[in-house]
Amino acid sequence: MKIVTSVKDMQGWALQARKSGGTVGLVPTMGFLHAGHVSLIREARRRADKVVLSIFVNPTQFGPDEDLDEYPRDFERDEALCAAEGVDIVFYPPASDMYASDASVFIVEEQLSRGLCGGSRPGHFRGVCTVVAKLFNLVLPDLAVFGRKDFQQLRILEQMTRDLNFPVEIVSAPIVREEDGLAISSRNKYLGPEERRQALCLREALDRAEELFSNGEREADAIKKEMRHIIGRNTLARIDYCQIVEIRQLQPLSTLNCPALAALAVYIGQTRLIDNTVLEWGT
Amino acid sequence: MKIVTSVKDMQGWALQARKSGGTVGLVPTMGFLHAGHVSLIREARRRADKVVLSIFVNPTQFGPDEDLDEYPRDFERDEALCAAEGVDIVFYPPASDMYASDASVFIVEEQLSRGLCGGSRPGHFRGVCTVVAKLFNLVLPDLAVFGRKDFQQLRILEQMTRDLNFPVEIVSAPIVREEDGLAISSRNKYLGPEERRQALCLREALDRAEELFSNGEREADAIKKEMRHIIGRNTLARIDYCQIVEIRQLQPLSTLNCPALAALAVYIGQTRLIDNTVLEWGT
Repeated sequence: MKIVTSVKDMQGWALQARKSGGTVGLVPTMGFLHAGHVSLIREARRRADKVVLSIFVNPTQFGPDEDLDEYPRDFERDEALCAAEGVDIVFYPPASDMYASDASVFIVEEQLSRGLCGGSRPGHFRGVCTVVAKLFNLVLPDLAVFGRKDFQQLRILEQMTRDLNFPVEIVSAPIVREEDGLAISSRNKYLGPEERRQALCLREALDRAEELFSNGEREADAIKKEMRHIIGRNTLARIDYCQIVEIRQLQPLSTLNCPALAALAVYIGQTRLIDNTVLEWGT
Repeated sequence: MKIVTSVKDMQGWALQARKSGGTVGLVPTMGFLHAGHVSLIREARRRADKVVLSIFVNPTQFGPDEDLDEYPRDFERDEALCAAEGVDIVFYPPASDMYASDASVFIVEEQLSRGLCGGSRPGHFRGVCTVVAKLFNLVLPDLAVFGRKDFQQLRILEQMTRDLNFPVEIVSAPIVREEDGLAISSRNKYLGPEERRQALCLREALDRAEELFSNGEREADAIKKEMRHIIGRNTLARIDYCQIVEIRQLQPLSTLNCPALAALAVYIGQTRLIDNTVLEWGT
């Protein structure tokens, strides 16, 4: 396994690799790797000849009051995990090499990013789109793998890839959960013991949404009301959003007459957690 | 020479070409080709093994009151010229294939695009950046050639290529002029005989700027005043902007103590023309 820390070396490798004819899979991460990332690596390995995993805590996707400085980091552990999982290259550039001090070009998504996390985190998806486009140009992958926990991010990056014609296949992988149902996230590390216990309310609310839906409930307000009720029983929980949206354009639904996503962002104490589930319509 | 009209076929060719190891040069145009474009084609041929010329009148770079519908077109003449100049592929996609009806991802430049044409044409460079990024992803060129008549466009595309890490070298070529000094442009076709005569005032004003500068004048206001005076003598001319800017960041200069660009946009009747000259500082 190779560690590449310079943008120039990464692109040099990629330009060579594209001539070799083998396929390259990219797993973009912010590091502090966990079982969710492992599932993305394995998906990439199944589909591509070489796997590049990037570790970059991207400053442009954090708001001024967000947790950029506190975001957990552990490069040595990440490196060992990547080696064990058969990653070919870990791309680990410093921010100064990724962004010129006078950088002025950004990628914006103007429809899917309006609500959900985009509504709560202005500029977040501008940062995500920009850094992922940069990674696409530096790694020149044939495919890139993203987790469905960040469902809105996944849809926006699919849209970016389509609208800007990147020759990259976007692959998605299911949410990985702890045994008790909590969606795995690097930010779970922030949770104290009581917060960790109450954090289960996200999964409980989504379970209830699935149950109501499978029992025939089609009114979004009725489902959201019960979800809010479940979360509201937890003293440390504060809802950022609790939404049911159509699954492609991510527009809010009042009646569930098409494939839908129930999506949650909830603060548990100071920690903002997200989770979601697809409400399968039809059979 | 091959004519490619589908986005999918273009990218298919490009993905094959990247494996072949030969280099590809891209000349992006809006068609209605003239001697300026010929100089770009020749520059591309000197530097690359294969030359792709794109013809696409890009709707997203035109404002609602601009000349998208009237923009001159003559594909048969363009095709003959490309064949004569040894172009390998003419990429001529329909707008419906370039933009999905629900396209929502765009590229914005937030510094260099504030003044000059960016000030007069809101959204113009957003459209330019977006379509050029799409062309880069569809043609996968090693280099792309742009004319220095659109100097601000050139700088913005250099910035985009750097900031988004496209593996593309941006090559520029000098302004090509008619015998009497008028910068060649597809829009010159709009000019009536008297307009054509008065259109020379752009070049005259720039000549005067060069003369003043070489005589030691370093106050931008003094130079701009004389430029405005020369243009003002023409009854059909209306200045959009007359500016002297620093050559990298395109910020207005009051004292010419670094490499500068004198840049003009002038309406001659209904036709908006641009021209510029670099005022070389030092020797």
